[in-house]
Amino acid sequence: MNMKSISYILGWILRIEGVFMALPAATAWVYGEREGWTYVAVLALCLVLGQLLTHKKPHNPSFYAKEGFVTTALGWIVMSLFGCLPFLITGEIPSFVDALFETVSGFTTTGASILSDVEALSHCSLIWRSFTHWIGGMGVLVFLLAVLPMVGGSNMHLMKAESPGPSVGKLVPKVRFTAQILYQLYIVLTVLEFILLLLGRMSVFEALCTAFGTAGTGGFGVRNDSIASYSPYIQWVVTIFMILFGVNFNVYFFIYIRKLRDAARCEEMRWYLGIIAAATVLICANAYDTALTLEHNVRNSAFQVASIITTTGFATVNFDLWPELSRTILVMLMFCGACAGSTGGGLKVSRFVIAAKSLGNYISTFLHPRAVRKVKFEDKDVEPETLRAILVYFIAVVFIFAVSVLLVSLDNFDQITNFTAVAATFNNIGPGLNAVGPTCNFAGFSAFAKCVMIFDMLAGRLEIFPLLMLLYPPLWRESISEARRRKARAAR
Amino acid sequence: MNMKSISYILGWILRIEGVFMALPAATAWVYGEREGWTYVAVLALCLVLGQLLTHKKPHNPSFYAKEGFVTTALGWIVMSLFGCLPFLITGEIPSFVDALFETVSGFTTTGASILSDVEALSHCSLIWRSFTHWIGGMGVLVFLLAVLPMVGGSNMHLMKAESPGPSVGKLVPKVRFTAQILYQLYIVLTVLEFILLLLGRMSVFEALCTAFGTAGTGGFGVRNDSIASYSPYIQWVVTIFMILFGVNFNVYFFIYIRKLRDAARCEEMRWYLGIIAAATVLICANAYDTALTLEHNVRNSAFQVASIITTTGFATVNFDLWPELSRTILVMLMFCGACAGSTGGGLKVSRFVIAAKSLGNYISTFLHPRAVRKVKFEDKDVEPETLRAILVYFIAVVFIFAVSVLLVSLDNFDQITNFTAVAATFNNIGPGLNAVGPTCNFAGFSAFAKCVMIFDMLAGRLEIFPLLMLLYPPLWRESISEARRRKARAAR
Repeated sequence: MNMKSISYILGWILRIEGVFMALPAATAWVYGEREGWTYVAVLALCLVLGQLLTHKKPHNPSFYAKEGFVTTALGWIVMSLFGCLPFLITGEIPSFVDALFETVSGFTTTGASILSDVEALSHCSLIWRSFTHWIGGMGVLVFLLAVLPMVGGSNMHLMKAESPGPSVGKLVPKVRFTAQILYQLYIVLTVLEFILLLLGRMSVFEALCTAFGTAGTGGFGVRNDSIASYSPYIQWVVTIFMILFGVNFNVYFFIYIRKLRDAARCEEMRWYLGIIAAATVLICANAYDTALTLEHNVRNSAFQVASIITTTGFATVNFDLWPELSRTILVMLMFCGACAGSTGGGLKVSRFVIAAKSLGNYISTFLHPRAVRKVKFEDKDVEPETLRAILVYFIAVVFIFAVSVLLVSLDNFDQITNFTAVAATFNNIGPGLNAVGPTCNFAGFSAFAKCVMIFDMLAGRLEIFPLLMLLYPPLWRESISEARRRKARAAR
Repeated sequence: MNMKSISYILGWILRIEGVFMALPAATAWVYGEREGWTYVAVLALCLVLGQLLTHKKPHNPSFYAKEGFVTTALGWIVMSLFGCLPFLITGEIPSFVDALFETVSGFTTTGASILSDVEALSHCSLIWRSFTHWIGGMGVLVFLLAVLPMVGGSNMHLMKAESPGPSVGKLVPKVRFTAQILYQLYIVLTVLEFILLLLGRMSVFEALCTAFGTAGTGGFGVRNDSIASYSPYIQWVVTIFMILFGVNFNVYFFIYIRKLRDAARCEEMRWYLGIIAAATVLICANAYDTALTLEHNVRNSAFQVASIITTTGFATVNFDLWPELSRTILVMLMFCGACAGSTGGGLKVSRFVIAAKSLGNYISTFLHPRAVRKVKFEDKDVEPETLRAILVYFIAVVFIFAVSVLLVSLDNFDQITNFTAVAATFNNIGPGLNAVGPTCNFAGFSAFAKCVMIFDMLAGRLEIFPLLMLLYPPLWRESISEARRRKARAAR
């Protein structure tokens, strides 16, 4: 294991986090809030520690998939540990586990909160909370790749480990430029939403927080009732942008290079939009509230469907009170998730589409035992390796999910609460049903259950394998024996 | 599609079902019940129709996987349609959907009932209900293969389509002898349990019904409180035999040919027994009832664990009242299921073990990208084809499960009821939680929801693909065009 490269990258992550903390510090200055000094202090700490770790550039260029996974997992843990310090020091979230939960929930774009009264938070903490969504949405390592010329073959492995979806599409041959293009598209879309929200007479502060929350498909709001008290115009803007941020960013890249036909042909996007349309119609019919207008009904169902399938987690209505069919559809959308290569979480539409196609393919082999037909997706043959990765991913999800629900059930909440709490954190959504419904929060769980969900949120955002790798004993056994061998060789 | 061979086999299934109906008819004679005449009439009907269909032995020997699947699916449907006639005609279950539900639940060894008062049934109907478990447990086609020298290559395809588990182990080279050995072992174990129950002072009738229910891992009882009111001795006997019938029958074959070491080395059995032990200890600790003795607590948890993991569905206690952890463990055991090649349902232990191993294998490839390691199970390499079949099976389960829960949720029961009702029928268990808990029944669902669950029970027992095949449009399109071509050729 190339520890020097890993700690070098961790150092850079800290430096970047330090720079990002300038935003809450500036916000505090604008609003004259004393909490701002805490952000300045943590900012300084991050920069100093980061400087120490990046002092010497490592020479060893060997950086493989395992290093990519371990760096990514550790990077996100380090980022969350430092990111939660301001909440702790200002005393706005006095418990360490709670502060960590809130920060991990932010970076992983989950949006599950342990706060019952977010309006009591200072402006700087509110914007930091929302900003973590934006940072985590596209990924801090992708950001790092965009700004820093990296060592050896490390960049592709880091990109792979952090980006969601069954296969990582490099837009252009160079990873660095791909990362830059992704962030450019991300910023343009965010700014666009920000402007449209301002046009709806939202304050600059709230528009910024809401745009961050939407862009990262996070879901932290600045009001206790999430998006419910905003105007229909703003709700529609948020709905549309949630859907846009759940689309595979390849589509925007095609639009960016003026290949509109290629953009429109994206198979995953079409399935994704189809599922949203079908779910919206079904829920609108099933949960129709005759006390409201048709537009209001459509808006409510479209908003909630977009919010859950993109794993954002905003709410305009307490969908926990909807009839069973609608609630069940929402639970299913929780697992479906958005497109690969978007900022959304969940299992990703493409995984389900490829899985369904390979099921159909399997059945057709009974009909024509000798014909070899390949599964096709996005007009390309799906490689057996990709197929295997998807299937193994499903298995990993099932195992982690089962163990998590078991551990969380020790708190003795009801089964729907446990099941949807794990589903909502693992798929990076935010709210679940019953005791973790959209009007409730995660404060009631024990510290142990919260730790389980912190793991789930990270596992969900990083698509499991980085975290599993970190906990995989053979990796550390081999690394230790390797280090020993090197020491022995040096002593000789 | 070889329609002649298919209808020939269907005819034999009817003839066998007719013979099996002699048991309830004889029971009615013993107890002097008028309902017996109904059984005699249906018996005669089955024999006559069967005779007509098997009148001419088909000459075309082409019989492939697709024919195997279609025959099996149709066979089970035909068997259930005729099997439910007595309930309908005697008026003991006046609704057709209910009678079909009860019969399918019997043959598929589910044990989910729509009856709230089973003690009101006649003896002949009670024994027919339990006998359907016994017939369905080892499978009617396996029985057919054991008694009838079959055409061409049909036998292996039929065996494959009806037997549970990821791969069908032929015990001996000839399918016919394998089927015979399986039924011999099945009968010996059933008789053994029957005798042990008689020794516990159970009546001959109840001992027979209980033995049938245990052997098929079905779960229909003859008393309203299932097994709760029997003596501890009888509860222990049933517990042990439920566990025994959930073991891969290969183990008994090894014992039968005196290869005890091979029997003890069965990897799946060891996992299965390990899971039972772990779940029993966990539940016993979690749901400990201080009002009862230690033995009573252990007995209750062991009984329920054995009943759920083997998908039998008997109950000695209302486990719906247990704390959340225990209830969650039970829900997980519902999916785990028993061993492949046993009479139990569920997804089967071996599938999960192989899936977990292939996950570990996948993770280790990140550590050693160039090393090719195979997944091993039962001391053998798992073929890629088996692995693919298992993974595709999981996908099929997820899709069918999701659609079923959606459709059942139209009845607007709570989510746990819907989820566990589908889980309990799809995995052929019987009781679920909440409104379908062990003290409740399935009568409250709409006819539509019952039809969904009838499909699920059949899909679960036949491991999905036979039923999917039956509903696969290309199969019928091709069969029709094939028939047309043959007609045209004949006309020329």
